[in-house]
Amino acid sequence: MKNKILVEISARHAHLSDADLETLFGEGHKLNNIKELSQPGQYATEERISIKGPRGQMDRVIILGPTRSQTQVEVSATDARTLGIKAPIRMSGDIEGSAGCTIIGPKGEIELEKGVIVAKRHIHATPAEAAKFNIEDGEKVSVRIDTNERSLTFDDVVVRVNENFSAAMHIDTDEGNAANISGSTIGTIIK
Amino acid sequence: MKNKILVEISARHAHLSDADLETLFGEGHKLNNIKELSQPGQYATEERISIKGPRGQMDRVIILGPTRSQTQVEVSATDARTLGIKAPIRMSGDIEGSAGCTIIGPKGEIELEKGVIVAKRHIHATPAEAAKFNIEDGEKVSVRIDTNERSLTFDDVVVRVNENFSAAMHIDTDEGNAANISGSTIGTIIK
Repeated sequence: MKNKILVEISARHAHLSDADLETLFGEGHKLNNIKELSQPGQYATEERISIKGPRGQMDRVIILGPTRSQTQVEVSATDARTLGIKAPIRMSGDIEGSAGCTIIGPKGEIELEKGVIVAKRHIHATPAEAAKFNIEDGEKVSVRIDTNERSLTFDDVVVRVNENFSAAMHIDTDEGNAANISGSTIGTIIK
Repeated sequence: MKNKILVEISARHAHLSDADLETLFGEGHKLNNIKELSQPGQYATEERISIKGPRGQMDRVIILGPTRSQTQVEVSATDARTLGIKAPIRMSGDIEGSAGCTIIGPKGEIELEKGVIVAKRHIHATPAEAAKFNIEDGEKVSVRIDTNERSLTFDDVVVRVNENFSAAMHIDTDEGNAANISGSTIGTIIK
C-alpha cells in the first residue's frame, strides 16, 4: 500500500557534541556503535549517561551517534515531569529557549543550558519516498494507527524530506503508549 | 455544541477495599476527602501509598475514595514499565488476570495479586447526556482533541452510561501527553 509507513518509538536519548562527549567520557573518547538505526548513518551506542533535573534523575540514558554540532536530550513529557523540567515540543535541532539539565557521565558532568526537548512527531522520507506518499518537506499530515485497545489518528505530524533519510515516522514513548504500541508498527498516512 | 465533552487526565492512583485500607493505614482508618472529582461521590483523599514492582517503586500515589469492593491500582503504561509490571489495558473493575504489585502504607504492606491495570480510555455520561451525545452504554466512539502541537483523534473510547455519572472523558497521563494536554480540555465526540 503506497500510504503505509513504518512507525518507530524513540525512547529517551541524547545526542552529544564532540566537546561534551569528551567532558563526559574523557579526552579522545569515541562513540561505540552497537546498532544501526532506520535512518542511514544513525546508530545506537554503548555509552550511557544520567540526566538530572530539579525533581529527579534518570540513569542509563542511551546516546545516539554520530556526534552533532549541539548536544540535545530528547525526553517524553512524562520524563520531563519526573525530572522537573519544562521541555518544549520541538523538532530535532530546534533548541533555542528549550530546557536545561545536568548530564552526568563516567568522567565528568555538564550543566546543559538548553537542549532538552520533547520531540515533535515527524516523518522522515527521501524525495522519492515523499513523492510516492504525495507529501512534501515541512507539510503536516495525519497518520492513523490501528492497534488492539488503543487505535488513534495522530495529527500534527511534520514531514521532513532529505536524501539521507529513510521512510519512517518517529513518536515518543508517551505517544507509543497512547496507541498501545511497543517496538514498532505500520501506520497509514492520511492527507 | 452538543458533541463537546470535558476531557480529564487521570494520573496514577489507587482504589482500596475496606480491608486493605485498614492493613495499610491502621484499624478503623477512614479516608480523608480533600477534593470532589467530576464523577459524583468520587473524591481525592489525603492518603498516599507507595507501589512497588520488580524494577521500581513509586511513592506518594494518591488514593481515590470512597473504598471499593476490590483494591485496584491504575497506572500509565510508562509507569508500568518503570515498575517492571505487565499491566493490561482494562476498564475499571475488570481486574481478573491483571498484574500484581506490592502496596506500602504507613501502617502495613499488601502483596496485591491482581488489580494493577492501565485504564482503557472511556466516557462517563448520564442517560440524558448519552441521549444528547447520541451514544450508548458499551459503544466505542472516537474523540478529537485539538491542541497546540499535538492534535489527535482517539478511537476505542468506551462509553459508560449511569445515572450516577457526569459527562467526562478520562484518559491517562501518557494519552494526555500524546495530545499535549495538561489538566483538562474539551474534546469533540465523533461517531
